Amino acid sequence: MAQEIPYKIFLNENELPKQWYNVRADMKNKPAPLLNPATMKPMVYDDLRPVFCDELVKQELDDTTPFFDIPEEILEFYKMYRPSPLVRAYCLEKKLNTPAKIYYKFEGNNTSGSHKLNSAIAQAYYAKQQGLKGVTTETGAGQWGTALSMACSYFELDCKVFMVKCSYEQKPFRREVMRTYGANVTPSPSETTEVGRRILAAHPGTTGSLGCAISEAVEVATHTPGNRYVLGSVLSQVLLHQTIIGLETKTAMDKYGIVPDIIIGCAGGGSNLGGLVSPFMGEKLRGERDYRIIAVEPASCPSFTRGKFAYDFCDTGMVCPLAKMYTLGSNFIPSANHAGGLRYHGMSSILSQLYHDGLMEARAVEQTSVFEAAETFARVEGILPAPESSHAIRAAIDEAIKCRETGEAKTILFGLTGTGYFDMLAYEKYNNGTMGDQFPTDEELEASFAALPKMPEGL
Amino acid sequence: MAQEIPYKIFLNENELPKQWYNVRADMKNKPAPLLNPATMKPMVYDDLRPVFCDELVKQELDDTTPFFDIPEEILEFYKMYRPSPLVRAYCLEKKLNTPAKIYYKFEGNNTSGSHKLNSAIAQAYYAKQQGLKGVTTETGAGQWGTALSMACSYFELDCKVFMVKCSYEQKPFRREVMRTYGANVTPSPSETTEVGRRILAAHPGTTGSLGCAISEAVEVATHTPGNRYVLGSVLSQVLLHQTIIGLETKTAMDKYGIVPDIIIGCAGGGSNLGGLVSPFMGEKLRGERDYRIIAVEPASCPSFTRGKFAYDFCDTGMVCPLAKMYTLGSNFIPSANHAGGLRYHGMSSILSQLYHDGLMEARAVEQTSVFEAAETFARVEGILPAPESSHAIRAAIDEAIKCRETGEAKTILFGLTGTGYFDMLAYEKYNNGTMGDQFPTDEELEASFAALPKMPEGL
Repeated sequence: MAQEIPYKIFLNENELPKQWYNVRADMKNKPAPLLNPATMKPMVYDDLRPVFCDELVKQELDDTTPFFDIPEEILEFYKMYRPSPLVRAYCLEKKLNTPAKIYYKFEGNNTSGSHKLNSAIAQAYYAKQQGLKGVTTETGAGQWGTALSMACSYFELDCKVFMVKCSYEQKPFRREVMRTYGANVTPSPSETTEVGRRILAAHPGTTGSLGCAISEAVEVATHTPGNRYVLGSVLSQVLLHQTIIGLETKTAMDKYGIVPDIIIGCAGGGSNLGGLVSPFMGEKLRGERDYRIIAVEPASCPSFTRGKFAYDFCDTGMVCPLAKMYTLGSNFIPSANHAGGLRYHGMSSILSQLYHDGLMEARAVEQTSVFEAAETFARVEGILPAPESSHAIRAAIDEAIKCRETGEAKTILFGLTGTGYFDMLAYEKYNNGTMGDQFPTDEELEASFAALPKMPEGL
Repeated sequence: MAQEIPYKIFLNENELPKQWYNVRADMKNKPAPLLNPATMKPMVYDDLRPVFCDELVKQELDDTTPFFDIPEEILEFYKMYRPSPLVRAYCLEKKLNTPAKIYYKFEGNNTSGSHKLNSAIAQAYYAKQQGLKGVTTETGAGQWGTALSMACSYFELDCKVFMVKCSYEQKPFRREVMRTYGANVTPSPSETTEVGRRILAAHPGTTGSLGCAISEAVEVATHTPGNRYVLGSVLSQVLLHQTIIGLETKTAMDKYGIVPDIIIGCAGGGSNLGGLVSPFMGEKLRGERDYRIIAVEPASCPSFTRGKFAYDFCDTGMVCPLAKMYTLGSNFIPSANHAGGLRYHGMSSILSQLYHDGLMEARAVEQTSVFEAAETFARVEGILPAPESSHAIRAAIDEAIKCRETGEAKTILFGLTGTGYFDMLAYEKYNNGTMGDQFPTDEELEASFAALPKMPEGL
């Protein structure tokens, strides 16, 4: 007998996932391994231990174990802000006059303002377990840095954040949230690292990039005793932690017999999208059920839609391992006009492989149309979305409008990853009509691709 | 049989309140009526209709009807962000090492970031029902203006907001949220109103006050056809709408057999405190059960603890009715150093009467100790609180520490009214150690009291 479906679905505590799901276990074509750039050999446990916590290295390298138990302490922390609500967007449906049923999983109801906390708390926990003193990371738009600051404060770990300089200056309030949680925040590139000094010498006056900030954070982490590097996206361990999003969503939908036809997420490094879609992708990989899965990226940083599937550096300083992924080249920097996150040059190697194998779609959307969708959504659904999340809103609205035209009552699910409270400068530009759209030219991309590392044949 | 109590209590949809509760119906000593300053006679329905929507005038004047049905359209809107969670602050208890059980009702999980939306949507609804074109209001810290913008956008009403000039300049992001929701925002005092021009002539360079902004908003509302004035606190109608907070809390607590010993709320104009405590106060008034109820106000704007219980103007321009309340005088302006809201010179006449009758307590707390409490709470509970809400946190922590000293396991409930995302300038001051505490001197207060209106004997 069908239960009545609540407007907002909150799982009960006893229904919450107790394990993360490792989608790689169900992939026939596994993601290509990380390579040591010196030897071009796959990175193994001992190669990665100086950089990452031991348990996280194990998670990073394990492509066969389907489930990982979530430690009790992390489950306790999750209870502070999870389950996140799965919401039926009735008001948006009405506004669009569509027969489609639209659902969104909202991850913004915690102080970090985004899904990033799901992995931050896991990474901080394993660092604490290992007896480390602190962790070092980078942040772009600031959501990851905020989340990590909160997690480190909870476990009383030192937290050092390299914040991309233009964000550091444009988002002083993000910086203050991190400081309120006790983090040490440095604008990147900085004079405090060798790689920072090198980048500043080569590009005086640069306002930084995520790739630079990663290089600085890795350098400090590996040169500070009792410290490790942590990363907020791209890595397979991060996708693993983020599957809490998809697992909650799937449990809630199964409970009420809801089956999504289309699943949509925004894609920067891929962690929220991967986390949301993993359990659904698992069914697809096992041949149990089919779904359309759509990654949405900014037209100004189009890794999937205009990038190359190739081994590349994860950072600008080229100190990190090589990953096989859709990439725009590690020197690529999106237009400064582009607001918010989703500025990373590469993409999760898991999602890259799935996309390469035709198991998901990708599309690029323009910034002004993203903010138009954001404003529509804010006005009717009462949540002010982050610019990143609004890429998914744009695609969800577009699919719902198609349904209006065809008369199909499809069920659309999208990930609403966060709130836009710290992005009001971008909204102001949009409100004032001074926001534009920029795309890399083919020539720019060719130049960027030319810097891809030369690989031995077959890789 | 006792049910297991969840960490966060969310009511089911069928448990949500369908009526607001009017605590005046249970008060033996009713709040004194609003007076017409010209005649010193109580304001009646026809006096107030040019200013407020008809239904809201009825609610304002009704001190006998115990319950008002919440219209279906408002219940629908409430579903977008309600029920709000009632949370057991386990981490805070552990941090304080207290035997006390601490619960908070969190109203910040909506884009306006505070409880203000509960009344904004009601006031916008009645304006729409009456066929009005728009509403006009003032905002100080910006929470009310944001909430009203959202509500007006939902019902497609024009929304004009006079924002206290210093906030307009210091909080451009609040302004942009309002604009994103389609509101017209004017810094106050402005040249666009007669009263604004008068105030500017008398005080050139003034950065404004809530009292000035109210005067401007009332002038525009009463001079614009199809427009009415709406207010975010102080009025009895606003307290009525805010009882949704207390009713949800009481239902949730009753469901699990939890009985609070102490109930704490911050007090500016009194709407969130009144809304939270009303159902508990009702039991107290009817002699069914006793509770300690504590209003917490800033030491820099101490209406309850250092004000006079007297008839006073609600606004600086003296265009509004007189209300009997605890007041610091309508010319009182708190120190510019004081962060956030809770800057109003007066207090709800309902709460004023209850306080006068010894049914609740009040205490004033210093700003730096408030931010200390805010930071402690943020770090362990994972929510960055608004400065206003943090006054309640301060008192809750102080009571919990007393329990640690006495060994009593009291149950403490407080209202966490909102988030501090738009208050990071204040947090920055606190983080940098440049935040101070200021109090009005006795001489300043005497000067302010001297301007209280001369009342006929017996009033």
